[in-house]
Amino acid sequence: MEDLLYNRRSIRKYTNQDIPQELLCDMLTLASRTSTTGNMQVYSVVATRDKEIKQQLLGCHFNQPMITNAPVVLTFCADFNRFNKWCELRNAEPGYDNFLSFMTATIDALLVAQTFSLIAESKGLGICYLGTTTYLAEKIIDVLKLPKFVVPITTITVGYPGEVPAQVDRLPIEAILHNDVYSDYTDEKINQIYAYKESLIENKKFVEENKKESLAQVFTDIRYSKKDNELFSKMLLNVIKKQGFKFPDETI
Amino acid sequence: MEDLLYNRRSIRKYTNQDIPQELLCDMLTLASRTSTTGNMQVYSVVATRDKEIKQQLLGCHFNQPMITNAPVVLTFCADFNRFNKWCELRNAEPGYDNFLSFMTATIDALLVAQTFSLIAESKGLGICYLGTTTYLAEKIIDVLKLPKFVVPITTITVGYPGEVPAQVDRLPIEAILHNDVYSDYTDEKINQIYAYKESLIENKKFVEENKKESLAQVFTDIRYSKKDNELFSKMLLNVIKKQGFKFPDETI
Repeated sequence: MEDLLYNRRSIRKYTNQDIPQELLCDMLTLASRTSTTGNMQVYSVVATRDKEIKQQLLGCHFNQPMITNAPVVLTFCADFNRFNKWCELRNAEPGYDNFLSFMTATIDALLVAQTFSLIAESKGLGICYLGTTTYLAEKIIDVLKLPKFVVPITTITVGYPGEVPAQVDRLPIEAILHNDVYSDYTDEKINQIYAYKESLIENKKFVEENKKESLAQVFTDIRYSKKDNELFSKMLLNVIKKQGFKFPDETI
Repeated sequence: MEDLLYNRRSIRKYTNQDIPQELLCDMLTLASRTSTTGNMQVYSVVATRDKEIKQQLLGCHFNQPMITNAPVVLTFCADFNRFNKWCELRNAEPGYDNFLSFMTATIDALLVAQTFSLIAESKGLGICYLGTTTYLAEKIIDVLKLPKFVVPITTITVGYPGEVPAQVDRLPIEAILHNDVYSDYTDEKINQIYAYKESLIENKKFVEENKKESLAQVFTDIRYSKKDNELFSKMLLNVIKKQGFKFPDETI
């Protein structure tokens, strides 16, 4: 486990080697041992191999080439549809059409996704997460035919590694760990924990190429802008509501 | 990895053995190799050992005894505070006071939490997730002194196992895996995938003890009721807003 994590990097290029369906099922079966809320397992995984469907998914992920390059695209979904159907068949009235239940199902889906990723990596496979899933969720719902009470949360592309990319930096542990209670950051501490990241040649290049003053500006002005975030917030909230999870009027 | 997951169970009772701070730091450092959105690492981990603070957390988690029994309680938080502070110090205007950014940070926090859990289990430690974190998040914010743009998402208690509980059931893999696109469930399929769970003596006992007609009713009427979910939805949405993540008016 140490070596696995110590050496890990996301893999965006894959060889032509396919992943046998049996291996995929075995890995997902193991991943399903992950804890879920009340052991309800309110998530689903859509494993897409079909070329035409992957082509459609490509457009949902801003044409990131991993989607068509990888043999398998896994979309991890918050899913109360199955549980609701079970309740209804058993004369039980489900009360899961609300924001808390959406969050519960989101937690389940993400914990299982991460277990799957580590299992896949331990088998010599490479994975890459796509953060775009929550941006164009509505399109993904259409392509994958997701019914009500199912919302895509994250996507992982999986395949045999066709590259050995450089490992990217991480903040030092004192940046993320707080003892007993949260210790808020002084300016000095912020300077200290971001110093290494800002000192890296590739990050300096990134700032220069984008004609920005600082690495932070590359994030705020280009990669994750306020305008985009606000647009995608609106779209995501609409999708969650459209899939059947209501928001209480009084709160917002 | 196979054995680890195949044999895993959540651990709710711990021995008196403490977890050395160095081991905890090493495990969290490894866990920080987990993928996060744009490598922004918008999460924090609060590791609580102090008895008095754990006593306060106990009330935030409906008095589940793992909180005071475990040597360490880890609260994984969605955290844009650190990133925002960095942006502000670097003349960059952060646009992360919105629902999408909250979800981005939630994803980061959960993926890291699950990596940490598997690392801890691989070291012979036992863990238990507490789903109550999203219920009384506001109280947790007070106890752990979480500033704006920090929201607790999940809690894990960690310690050396003081029990070997029976392993709980899981749905068969065909319940959660969909090939290419989502295949919705027929009544027959629902009956089939829930048959094993419903056949278990402990679950039948559960139905009997609660004087219900079906296992599903134990969930809908007692464990996760509509009334509770709606109350906690409202509370959680208010907390997210209070911590600084706005919801666009037009959507809801």
